[in-house]
Amino acid sequence: MQTITVKSPGTLSNLCCGFDALGMALQEPFDIIQVSKRTVSGISIYHKDSYGLSEDPKINIAGVSLQAFISKLAYKEGFDVTIDKKIKPGSGLGSSAASAAGIVVAVNELLGKPFTDNELLLLAMEGEAMASGSRHLDNVAPCVLGGTVLIRDAQNLDIVKLNNPDLFVSIVHPQIEIKTSFAREILPVDIPLKKAVMQWANVGGLVSGICMNDLDLIARSLVDVIVEPVRSKLIPGFDEVKQIAIQSGAMGGGLSGSGPSVFMFSKNLETAEKVESEMKSVFDKIQLECKSYVTRPAQHGIEILELQ
Amino acid sequence: MQTITVKSPGTLSNLCCGFDALGMALQEPFDIIQVSKRTVSGISIYHKDSYGLSEDPKINIAGVSLQAFISKLAYKEGFDVTIDKKIKPGSGLGSSAASAAGIVVAVNELLGKPFTDNELLLLAMEGEAMASGSRHLDNVAPCVLGGTVLIRDAQNLDIVKLNNPDLFVSIVHPQIEIKTSFAREILPVDIPLKKAVMQWANVGGLVSGICMNDLDLIARSLVDVIVEPVRSKLIPGFDEVKQIAIQSGAMGGGLSGSGPSVFMFSKNLETAEKVESEMKSVFDKIQLECKSYVTRPAQHGIEILELQ
Repeated sequence: MQTITVKSPGTLSNLCCGFDALGMALQEPFDIIQVSKRTVSGISIYHKDSYGLSEDPKINIAGVSLQAFISKLAYKEGFDVTIDKKIKPGSGLGSSAASAAGIVVAVNELLGKPFTDNELLLLAMEGEAMASGSRHLDNVAPCVLGGTVLIRDAQNLDIVKLNNPDLFVSIVHPQIEIKTSFAREILPVDIPLKKAVMQWANVGGLVSGICMNDLDLIARSLVDVIVEPVRSKLIPGFDEVKQIAIQSGAMGGGLSGSGPSVFMFSKNLETAEKVESEMKSVFDKIQLECKSYVTRPAQHGIEILELQ
Repeated sequence: MQTITVKSPGTLSNLCCGFDALGMALQEPFDIIQVSKRTVSGISIYHKDSYGLSEDPKINIAGVSLQAFISKLAYKEGFDVTIDKKIKPGSGLGSSAASAAGIVVAVNELLGKPFTDNELLLLAMEGEAMASGSRHLDNVAPCVLGGTVLIRDAQNLDIVKLNNPDLFVSIVHPQIEIKTSFAREILPVDIPLKKAVMQWANVGGLVSGICMNDLDLIARSLVDVIVEPVRSKLIPGFDEVKQIAIQSGAMGGGLSGSGPSVFMFSKNLETAEKVESEMKSVFDKIQLECKSYVTRPAQHGIEILELQ
């Protein structure tokens, strides 16, 4: 095997109440990453997309993760990497995780799987950490494993793959920039115990709703009393977008990761499409350009498209 | 129908990480409550046990809940109540909830079910609030509903009944008194967000472990980084008791409610019995008398023993 092409999915992290603990792989958007072995050592990266990301392997997210992979394996030869990024960087849809994880999963397949999933997650976190300033797993883990994923213990990589609920996801991505590191800085260091109890009761409700595919329980549990009240202020129109989505039949939703993308769950495609267009119309009204998607949770994480 | 006899189960609340959000009905211990209709209005309460609880209906927990029931129904006649309490008051095993809930479920059956489960929970909370000083549901709800119960939203009575995991419960109850109100006062008002994330990740793990009957996941999730470090100081020998339980093969555990009872889960009866006896031996060593049990989660809550 010389060349592999993989599809690396976008991900929702947090899922409202599950800050730093829950994530979900999406069927769309996704990046396409192609990796070819070469006999000369080193890494060459080429971006087919037009996001202007650096192709210097030392500061390219995929490059950093791939270098960590090569170092850990003490691999002597090199790779040519072509990335067609369709998940816009800074969207809150796990763009950096898709690069960081996609590259290591691809190369692992190409070399006959020298590493386990957990080892790959550690390697992927190298790139993710460079991108976001923190070693969080809530995008990387669902990107690699697929499905809805609970990070029970990030330190010890105790990750639980849950069922995927039978629902549809509407996403609008207003074209504003929110730095993940800034979105983290504005969070309170301490929170009231009373609010924390409400939050973990909702996490319990969301996780049991997912396990039992109880969409009404999921809907009632999509409540974030801690992070959303702070971070949503960074997004013009957020409250109105959320309100119109619920009025249009959405089960609930909130910020994807640290934003600016807003996601909503719906029970069927028709509702999800209506929710998408109504949310978009609020951003249109305040002249905020946005990209939008209607998609579904992805049962599988990174998938091989071609191996030759 | 003139007379009903019910069995009202003890309950574990919190289950480590799930402070104020999780509870579990137990097969043992349980109270026996007998209620007879009478044509004269008013309530007479008689305690067969020897705990010295007041039989004045105005300050007896069952009496307070029953009075709330009678008032809500505008019922004209009265009841004679005989309680054989086997769950020691102040044990942390839901003794007050068993009285408060047992009486209203019993009378509801006797009168042909005028009230729904949620209405009964509200009535039971009247007695529970008098006993503990707070209107919490984490003992009352599993007592009425059985099984493992998640209180997603106490305010709106959104309660989720989960599967019962296939495990055994060892309980030791050292004979010291801890006032629930005091155990609540010593908790911090604010907690670090970082610890809260750990806690809700564990709630997610515990709930998904229960839903999927994954005993190893349950074991890993029985972690409380917020409440146990504070409350366990009230119980002499707690750390040693916990350590010896784990060494003896327990999956994990902690304080039952606000204590002083300590519970541990085990995968089989033999281990649960060993864990019980080893935990008891620690309290013996420091000359703390204790009562102990080996039991299992109860699928059903309050059960009718006789109706005539």
